[in-house]
Amino acid sequence: MRMYDIIHKKREGGELSEEEIRFFVQGYTQGEIPDYQVSALLMAIFFQGMTRRETGALTLEMANSGDRVDLSSIPGVKVDKHSTGGVGDKTSLILGPIAAACGVKIAKMSGRGLGHTGGTVDKLESIPGLRTAIPREEFFDIVRKTGLAIIGQSGNLCPADKKLYALRDVTATVESLPLIASSIMSKKIAAGADAILLDVKMGSGAFMKTLEDSRALAKEMVRIGEQVGRRTVALITDMDMPLGRNIGNALEVQEACQVLSGKGDHRLRALCLELAANMIYLGGQASEMASARVQVVDAVRSGQALEKLRQMVEAQGGDGSYIQHPEKFQVSPACVEVTAPAKGFITRLDAEECGLAAVELGAGRETKDSVIDAGAGIVLLKNKGDSVEQGEPIARLYAQTQELCQRGQERFLSALEVGSHAPDVGPMILERVEGE
Amino acid sequence: MRMYDIIHKKREGGELSEEEIRFFVQGYTQGEIPDYQVSALLMAIFFQGMTRRETGALTLEMANSGDRVDLSSIPGVKVDKHSTGGVGDKTSLILGPIAAACGVKIAKMSGRGLGHTGGTVDKLESIPGLRTAIPREEFFDIVRKTGLAIIGQSGNLCPADKKLYALRDVTATVESLPLIASSIMSKKIAAGADAILLDVKMGSGAFMKTLEDSRALAKEMVRIGEQVGRRTVALITDMDMPLGRNIGNALEVQEACQVLSGKGDHRLRALCLELAANMIYLGGQASEMASARVQVVDAVRSGQALEKLRQMVEAQGGDGSYIQHPEKFQVSPACVEVTAPAKGFITRLDAEECGLAAVELGAGRETKDSVIDAGAGIVLLKNKGDSVEQGEPIARLYAQTQELCQRGQERFLSALEVGSHAPDVGPMILERVEGE
Repeated sequence: MRMYDIIHKKREGGELSEEEIRFFVQGYTQGEIPDYQVSALLMAIFFQGMTRRETGALTLEMANSGDRVDLSSIPGVKVDKHSTGGVGDKTSLILGPIAAACGVKIAKMSGRGLGHTGGTVDKLESIPGLRTAIPREEFFDIVRKTGLAIIGQSGNLCPADKKLYALRDVTATVESLPLIASSIMSKKIAAGADAILLDVKMGSGAFMKTLEDSRALAKEMVRIGEQVGRRTVALITDMDMPLGRNIGNALEVQEACQVLSGKGDHRLRALCLELAANMIYLGGQASEMASARVQVVDAVRSGQALEKLRQMVEAQGGDGSYIQHPEKFQVSPACVEVTAPAKGFITRLDAEECGLAAVELGAGRETKDSVIDAGAGIVLLKNKGDSVEQGEPIARLYAQTQELCQRGQERFLSALEVGSHAPDVGPMILERVEGE
Repeated sequence: MRMYDIIHKKREGGELSEEEIRFFVQGYTQGEIPDYQVSALLMAIFFQGMTRRETGALTLEMANSGDRVDLSSIPGVKVDKHSTGGVGDKTSLILGPIAAACGVKIAKMSGRGLGHTGGTVDKLESIPGLRTAIPREEFFDIVRKTGLAIIGQSGNLCPADKKLYALRDVTATVESLPLIASSIMSKKIAAGADAILLDVKMGSGAFMKTLEDSRALAKEMVRIGEQVGRRTVALITDMDMPLGRNIGNALEVQEACQVLSGKGDHRLRALCLELAANMIYLGGQASEMASARVQVVDAVRSGQALEKLRQMVEAQGGDGSYIQHPEKFQVSPACVEVTAPAKGFITRLDAEECGLAAVELGAGRETKDSVIDAGAGIVLLKNKGDSVEQGEPIARLYAQTQELCQRGQERFLSALEVGSHAPDVGPMILERVEGE
């Protein structure tokens, strides 16, 4: 088998066999096939696409390229969730406890934030004492006992995907649906999930800007799930404005506790209800979505979901009292309030710009080595579509110094537009994609 | 300027600016841009093509990447010819003398043969004493005095093209029209030509198998010529069967002398007439093709063309008596005669297979380091379309040993088919492409 023939075949629109995909993924990971042949293949894939069988084979081959987490010692259906990245997206902190309260097993490895999107691991670490670096067996134990654990990524997961992604990043071959989809799915499969829930974000703060693109990505990933034998559902959800009211690490844990107590932002609650119901459905705890939704409502109303988060926090070494009394979280000392320049409606509150404002405040990372301020961030008193009086507070920005607050405010103001007419605010959940 | 942006722009179908093309060609040649980015760009070019302005800029940039031969000290219009590679193609040995006899200046650098195609330099070296490695100033002197010299390639011509071609060869990006065309044209421009005649071969023995592809390549090259200010004409010519009757180095010089004496194979003579007339037309020695054709006929009939070849051979240190008495060329000692297995017509005589048979006999190179037997080769007594009686000789194969003859014969037989119906034999010259 020769790499040249594989490139040529794909260039001409042919379907690569499992053996050919294995040959190039393994050969590349092991350093036997040079970058320049792989980048030519990636560009040919950009133009010719991949069939269902090809993306399935590529996904499995990348998942098999390093360690695979074996969750089989944990009884029950293990459901994982992936979001394509949002601003103010604290849903993992809400869905996990709800689904676990309903009997689904959640053994989740999460990432850290980079750029305008936050990371669940950073958010959890704002809880005093909480550990996210937990040895494999202890991690499994926590899931077996409480039904839920969320830790940082560890081990050598999907080295083939890492190497391919780094190459795509410098050869303008990132924006290929089968490559994006197989990259995401390979990591979920390597992490051991039986079933996968995908939250495909759409809008100004998301990688996918249009419904058409989002739908194509969602379908591609669901198709891969089917192809590799993992039940998969994707929701396409709005990311044109920040999700919920709080952006920042401690602030987002606080808001998660609010939602788990049955309170909080309406759109955020609507999203969490649907995502959690889908996790319960995928976990086999409900045979239809309507029944799964009732379970979600009951788990929140009964306090079981919030209690589940407290149990997880305690099991991971954290101070559970913060979950029962989220007012204990300290915000950073400096604060500015952004007020409405005129009476009217908030016609735009760009999610990506808000995320970057939070980075300026110290809540996120500009580079991998940046240090995070857990108490920094933004509390939105208004969001897109809300009416405001002149001088009415729109948001409070928190940081360590007034100077940082000023920088954050400048960025935040570039995200904001106030106009005289109420804008269209689309639905929170645009589509649901499930396999046949 | 970033290579990433250049790849991305081409991927999206944009037109690269001259500055962008210069940036990547120079950066790659100087080792500043890595192979993996260039191969991704080449694959994007394969799919998106290049505009006239882009191919022109790429051609000039590659021509400027190394030495450029400055022919300005030779008075007159210097015309160069390029063939895309054929079997039995001794036309350079015929056209040069004819055109020079008509006042065109030919300062030609030729290549050696590799694989199934022969090289003019190898053919010339079968003339005792003849040198093809000649210092630049002596080369110019010969052209000034005799109007004609053909030497081997020397100097650092088009290093960018060499490096890009080597990369294309291993990344399945050879078959891109703008890349093929700019590669050929850049070498001709670096070699100093004022005007360029292109012989685009079509058929089983050629790189281009169909008229459509050949026409596209011809047009692309003529367009580049216009773009960079070189008068350029392309002829699309048949290479479905070997060109003429002789394949092999000394054998082809012999045949060239025959044609220059007004004798020889009809199709070969037809091709040489047209090519030589185009050289005269491009060299400004005739304002219309009809007049140029008359000059060709006269130069051959008067003996001036053959005399011009003899002068060139003597000037390059060769024994000119071989040109006046081509029977002096020695063929290799071992011989087999291939005869017709049945009465009928030669329905197929595959050019590429015949070329490979000649390589088996010792007339060509399998690798760059192979040693050539100048007297080895094939004399075709019949060609495609000819009728044969059972047992009638079709070809004589010459080599150093009977064993080599047997190996050559086996290959030759795989090129040959005899059937009961006369095959279609298409015209020698299919199309002529000239700029507007």
